[in-house]
Amino acid sequence: MKQEKNIPYKIYLEESEMPKAWYNLRADMKKKPAPLLNPETLEPMTAEELGAVFCEELVKQELDTETAYFPIPQEIQDFYKMYRPSPLVRAYCLEEKLQTPAKIYYKFEGNNTSGSHKLNSAIAQAYYAKNQGLKGVTTETGAGQWGTALSMACAYLGLDCKVYMVKVSYEQKPFRREVMRTYGAEVTPSPSETTAIGRKILEEHPGTTGSLGCAISEAVEAATSKEGYRYVLGSVLNQVMLHQSIIGLETKAALDKYGITPDVIIGCAGGGSNLGGLIAPFMGEQLRGEKNYQFIAVEPASCPSLTRGKYAYDFCDTGKVTPLAKMYTLGSGFIPSANHAGGLRYHGMSSTLSELYDQGLLEARSVEQTAVFEAAKMFAQVEGILPAPESSHAIRVAIDEAMKCKETGEEKTIVFGLTGTGYFDMVAYEKFNNGEMTDYIPTDEDLAQGFAGIPKFEGNEID
Amino acid sequence: MKQEKNIPYKIYLEESEMPKAWYNLRADMKKKPAPLLNPETLEPMTAEELGAVFCEELVKQELDTETAYFPIPQEIQDFYKMYRPSPLVRAYCLEEKLQTPAKIYYKFEGNNTSGSHKLNSAIAQAYYAKNQGLKGVTTETGAGQWGTALSMACAYLGLDCKVYMVKVSYEQKPFRREVMRTYGAEVTPSPSETTAIGRKILEEHPGTTGSLGCAISEAVEAATSKEGYRYVLGSVLNQVMLHQSIIGLETKAALDKYGITPDVIIGCAGGGSNLGGLIAPFMGEQLRGEKNYQFIAVEPASCPSLTRGKYAYDFCDTGKVTPLAKMYTLGSGFIPSANHAGGLRYHGMSSTLSELYDQGLLEARSVEQTAVFEAAKMFAQVEGILPAPESSHAIRVAIDEAMKCKETGEEKTIVFGLTGTGYFDMVAYEKFNNGEMTDYIPTDEDLAQGFAGIPKFEGNEID
Repeated sequence: MKQEKNIPYKIYLEESEMPKAWYNLRADMKKKPAPLLNPETLEPMTAEELGAVFCEELVKQELDTETAYFPIPQEIQDFYKMYRPSPLVRAYCLEEKLQTPAKIYYKFEGNNTSGSHKLNSAIAQAYYAKNQGLKGVTTETGAGQWGTALSMACAYLGLDCKVYMVKVSYEQKPFRREVMRTYGAEVTPSPSETTAIGRKILEEHPGTTGSLGCAISEAVEAATSKEGYRYVLGSVLNQVMLHQSIIGLETKAALDKYGITPDVIIGCAGGGSNLGGLIAPFMGEQLRGEKNYQFIAVEPASCPSLTRGKYAYDFCDTGKVTPLAKMYTLGSGFIPSANHAGGLRYHGMSSTLSELYDQGLLEARSVEQTAVFEAAKMFAQVEGILPAPESSHAIRVAIDEAMKCKETGEEKTIVFGLTGTGYFDMVAYEKFNNGEMTDYIPTDEDLAQGFAGIPKFEGNEID
Repeated sequence: MKQEKNIPYKIYLEESEMPKAWYNLRADMKKKPAPLLNPETLEPMTAEELGAVFCEELVKQELDTETAYFPIPQEIQDFYKMYRPSPLVRAYCLEEKLQTPAKIYYKFEGNNTSGSHKLNSAIAQAYYAKNQGLKGVTTETGAGQWGTALSMACAYLGLDCKVYMVKVSYEQKPFRREVMRTYGAEVTPSPSETTAIGRKILEEHPGTTGSLGCAISEAVEAATSKEGYRYVLGSVLNQVMLHQSIIGLETKAALDKYGITPDVIIGCAGGGSNLGGLIAPFMGEQLRGEKNYQFIAVEPASCPSLTRGKYAYDFCDTGKVTPLAKMYTLGSGFIPSANHAGGLRYHGMSSTLSELYDQGLLEARSVEQTAVFEAAKMFAQVEGILPAPESSHAIRVAIDEAMKCKETGEEKTIVFGLTGTGYFDMVAYEKFNNGEMTDYIPTDEDLAQGFAGIPKFEGNEID
């Protein structure tokens, strides 16, 4: 194995080198992301309106587009020390396998029990809830990574945690459910009899297996109808991007420590929290005119928000109970094909990333799932880590870029985000291993149906 | 959170500080562990006899009781760099939760896809097989950690890997099976039609769900009946203890770096590979008269090899196809109650650990499983890591020892081995979460049945 002199397999920061503040990328954006709108008045959401659903401190973070750095409270820093810094890994074995002159690094966020980067924001959101004197928080979860992360954070802080888990996942992923229960969370299959909206949906669709949109509606209702509770969300929001900047800050500190400057930075994108966090400090340099990088967002071809979506105001959920966000969207009614294996099935995209994409500062690629699992399996075999299907989207494009370097002879430095592990995704791997996995690309007609649900008002025309 | 000045949450060695040689504890033992015997001749097994089943280099390691250090081949060192050094974690949060003056550290071996320490020996055994020009290796697996580890090592080296998985696990743990297949292993439910012994067992017991003993027999037959294959084993053997010394060597290097001397060192014990590896360099100091530590082996009350077993020559497998090993044993026919959740269900114990225990250098405790899961759940909630049931035996006793310190006011330094994660053990956690887990302690009559199967010959009297 060729190992570059002085570049270890894994770069770990010392505790003293860990970031002490989160970075708010919006502070360096000249054109800011559009504000959230109240769907009834079409006016920007006020702090008061948001405060009914979210914790006060998080509302401040959500609305602040000027403050560049938010100090990380000591208790959150302490929690981070339990599973962070995460390693920045030099993919020596992958490089050798590909016989590429490219130098590949990945920031691995899967070494914690939630199995992903979600914990970075979960602990922050739980902390502010606790600090506000709340009893607990509610949320929804689909695949279960976010729910697990929030359960862990709440267990640590002694906070009550109610998770509405999409019924089909609740039944098909009993292990995820059980991890959450082990961390003391109350996990309810959604739709449920515990909320008015749940009862209504069950009456109208008795056999339904649930959806993320419905679970959001139930979680919001549970938070707002009970004293001492607030709702928390694992992606899309600006506050989440802020907390996830820890990924990029650590990555940059590790690279700087060894005098490495990346050429290409790649991340998978569902709601955008991981990608936004990874690229934040690098994009900041670019916006301030200090450096120049190539940024690539990777999304599934079956749910192509950036590559085929519309840039418009839309609801954040299927049930249309949330504020309107300006973003690249497939329409809040869009549901990816059932054959879609991984996460990244969100119809929209973080407003900040959407704005960067619109300004041409961020590229986007869409990839098909069999190609993603091919990359995942190759990666697992040579690098040892079994990646989550979501994360494997980034692996796919990192390999593609490295193979381009092989053709051109360029020694590019490629950095990608490996957001998590696939231990709870073995049903999808089994399908792939058995040659039973298929691809799906929505037709223009499929997309048109989703676009038709985007709210129509002056200034929100989509064509 | 009180954090001791200069002691980080996680101590990581630098790459340059990683061990370059394994340590062979037997070299420092004045009274050596008894040799393996050929069950037919009752003479010590020769290298030639062992070479028919195991790789040459591993046979050398197995039989060598004099060489203190075996250099780790560079290719294995490279592989280790992908997931090692493993962190030595200061359990600040657990200490706070317990309000104990004890200082607790754990060596966490679960941050790799096999989910345990098994990978340390899997890569070594696969490497020597490859080096000998073999095509592949065969093995058995129960819970699946060893099979996964071996699959990973073989994928990395491009070696064929055939795993006989106990049928009931194959069916109940499809995810484990699928991880192995993702790493390219051929996984066969045992008993199977692919071997003579498998066909015989199926004919005699058509409905059998298999056993580890039967899977061993099939794996050995598959290795010895096919050109270019050898059999490999994940625990019990001296060679495995040798490879696992990497755990203790890293632990000691990390403690030395911060000037910490442990008082108590605790590990769970099934076949003994983890415990033997963890304590090796510390026990070496003790044997050489340089230091004095308290060593505690923890085993399940339902499978109490050390605390209630006999020290005698016995077969290593249920099928009685292996050589005889002198060890603390419950009899090779002993099978722990079906209600037993975790691993650590082996009837015997490594010869080296057995000899140390017999000499009074090692203590043993047995713990009941509900007490183990209580400890596991508390640990998960405060330390974030969801532990494997096996590892949680060590957590239980570490907590017990820390609580004793609380009573006495002693500031003991406790180190324990956290061998792995419990992501694939959620069925057991579910049982515990639902209050449906029960305990089982074998009666003296139960044990007598097992003891009756211990071979009788001169010098092997058990009472």
